Amino acid sequence: MEAEIITIGDEIISGHTIDTNSAYIAPRLAEIGLPVTYKSAVGDDLKKMEEAIHLALRRAGVVITTGGLGPTDDDITKKAIVRVFKRNLVFQEDVLEDIRRRFAARGIKMPAINQNQALLPQGAIYLPNRLGSAVGIAIIEDDKIFISLPGVPREVQVIADEELLPFLKKYVRGEVIKIIKIRTTGIIESALAEKIAPATAKLPENVRLAYLPSYSGVDLRVVATGPSEDSARESAERVALKIREAAEKYIYAEGEISLEEIIGTILAKRGQKLATAESCTAGLLAGQITRIPGSSTYFELGVVTYSNQSKIDLLGVQAETLERFGAVSVETAEEMARGIRTRAGVDYGLAVTGIAGPDGGTPEKPIGTVIIAAASAQTVVSRRFQLGIDRESNRRRTVYIALEALRRLLLGIE
Amino acid sequence: MEAEIITIGDEIISGHTIDTNSAYIAPRLAEIGLPVTYKSAVGDDLKKMEEAIHLALRRAGVVITTGGLGPTDDDITKKAIVRVFKRNLVFQEDVLEDIRRRFAARGIKMPAINQNQALLPQGAIYLPNRLGSAVGIAIIEDDKIFISLPGVPREVQVIADEELLPFLKKYVRGEVIKIIKIRTTGIIESALAEKIAPATAKLPENVRLAYLPSYSGVDLRVVATGPSEDSARESAERVALKIREAAEKYIYAEGEISLEEIIGTILAKRGQKLATAESCTAGLLAGQITRIPGSSTYFELGVVTYSNQSKIDLLGVQAETLERFGAVSVETAEEMARGIRTRAGVDYGLAVTGIAGPDGGTPEKPIGTVIIAAASAQTVVSRRFQLGIDRESNRRRTVYIALEALRRLLLGIE
Repeated sequence: MEAEIITIGDEIISGHTIDTNSAYIAPRLAEIGLPVTYKSAVGDDLKKMEEAIHLALRRAGVVITTGGLGPTDDDITKKAIVRVFKRNLVFQEDVLEDIRRRFAARGIKMPAINQNQALLPQGAIYLPNRLGSAVGIAIIEDDKIFISLPGVPREVQVIADEELLPFLKKYVRGEVIKIIKIRTTGIIESALAEKIAPATAKLPENVRLAYLPSYSGVDLRVVATGPSEDSARESAERVALKIREAAEKYIYAEGEISLEEIIGTILAKRGQKLATAESCTAGLLAGQITRIPGSSTYFELGVVTYSNQSKIDLLGVQAETLERFGAVSVETAEEMARGIRTRAGVDYGLAVTGIAGPDGGTPEKPIGTVIIAAASAQTVVSRRFQLGIDRESNRRRTVYIALEALRRLLLGIE
Repeated sequence: MEAEIITIGDEIISGHTIDTNSAYIAPRLAEIGLPVTYKSAVGDDLKKMEEAIHLALRRAGVVITTGGLGPTDDDITKKAIVRVFKRNLVFQEDVLEDIRRRFAARGIKMPAINQNQALLPQGAIYLPNRLGSAVGIAIIEDDKIFISLPGVPREVQVIADEELLPFLKKYVRGEVIKIIKIRTTGIIESALAEKIAPATAKLPENVRLAYLPSYSGVDLRVVATGPSEDSARESAERVALKIREAAEKYIYAEGEISLEEIIGTILAKRGQKLATAESCTAGLLAGQITRIPGSSTYFELGVVTYSNQSKIDLLGVQAETLERFGAVSVETAEEMARGIRTRAGVDYGLAVTGIAGPDGGTPEKPIGTVIIAAASAQTVVSRRFQLGIDRESNRRRTVYIALEALRRLLLGIE
């Protein structure tokens, strides 16, 4: 069985909002044997919505819409559903009670307009929304399953995980897709492709390989299909094994595990602590490390020392170092890493300095020059990188470069 | 004339990558009279790509694809183009030269595989890519314009702005869409809708209103169409005027201006400086403020004081305050704001403390309890908020709550 996702909303079609919902739902559908074969987006236009739903129901066994279930007048997905399935909207008291409770918990009086959200198509199954007042809707008709979810990403995620996937699993049997995601860093896409070419030149019919470059590096996705979980996994695993051998040095994780998770796990297990000193990334490194719940057990302190004076005052960087080598130098980065380590009284200090752009470049240190340093009690390691010219990309990439340097220091690699 | 966008790639259709490209392109097309009426996504499947391109070319005057122009084997968009337009791929020496120069500038030897990227469909116009080795491709055939762009978001943005839009402007005439984006904060969507209902109950035929909730607040988009730039603008402006009157107190900006930009402009103009002290947002606040190029002129120092000890050592928070009121309290937040202001020797100190979750909540201070404080030489203001239960949402929302508090302090609001 195949699935289609329709994203609804003027803000999506006009580009003012980015659709992250279909990206959240699709891989989770694939895992339960429901590959998404087509995605589309339409605006808040009743006729176009009807057409899109009809078309999708013809092609796919499961059709999921996101968006347009809010309380305001521009949210008209339910009107389209009523027309497509020729059902009336009926008032569901238990849904209304849920919504009332939600507002009460936040100490806000429920605006009258939110009552609309308790109106559901007749015979629809209601998928509770723990985070918001727009519930999900499921309609089963003939051999098709139609699902309508709200548009707020966090709500979609919670409904999908807690309600939708268990619901669909009961109804679906099909070809299983198994995906192995191999995460690499420190090597560009084309060089990685050359390196693993011998291992991946001739892939079996049911296996595909995709390269996904991102700020953190290049992820490789080995996608295999098969009649069962086991056979699909086996096919994927055979190819993954060869890739691991060919690119071992660059692989830092598999699956959805992030660099900051790996680092956090190591530190927590060892009972060690970390502190950061940032210049060009200005807090994004600390922000990334602390994405992990419980990171307060190993993350002690972060400082964003944008000015030279604050590097001297807070980190004990020598004025002479700054004068002689500049704020963006290996010498300064290493003093920052050692300085924050001492200042915070922790096991590891991680420091970043660089020129994010668009201004501040020089011929010797052009925009995109970045230096990271990682200090332990025994040693300090540093490296200089030449990134691109875009401020935000440079900041994001630098965060991962720093995390990777720390990972290598923690594991004694190189 | 209308436009369609086709996003290409297994990683998009499977949800492993989020399509931000169509969201970047669509509003910019609308501004030059090319509304996007349909978006779709297909995987790296030659047949499906051909079908999608054919279908889009039948419906729209301008068709833009993104993705699948990389050097590796899974990038097959050019093969699909060649089939749809029945043209051969020919080698373009000037494109190859460009690519070689790019690798040389980064001190990397060009992998042989990148030569493929200089192969373009015969008669295609080449849209240079300042940031990467995959150039854009334009084909004009009959009354249709077909464009193929790479998939890396920053590259798409640069090609769109510098090459694609000037190129399309020359060819396109059509109905003009004018959009006024009014940015509000501190009010939930349904309450805002009730507040502006009298002003927006009866909209003219050619005007639509959309609500876009995000971490920073609720944006209102007034979208008007008309035969000319002037008439569309006039229609949008009439509605916007009424909204401004009805919701004035909650409006912080119009257009694409962000809170951090507004704050930066004020500080830079006054020659004043800012420092931050963060607990639960852990660097994200400093990271957001420094998104703005040139922010180093007004951002002096940021600290991420996750532990009590670091709050005492670095910010001078009293141990007694922490003991009596706790780390998440108005008292601590205010001492943090005053402390960072003094420590950094700046005009304003902005502080955040809270319980992001998923652990750490208590009956008096449940998960989502957040306190922000902003200090100037004369005063310190603070506020307590009750957010939700999701760690990442809480962190993101808190960044904007803090920025809004600073904006109000800077402007003397309330």
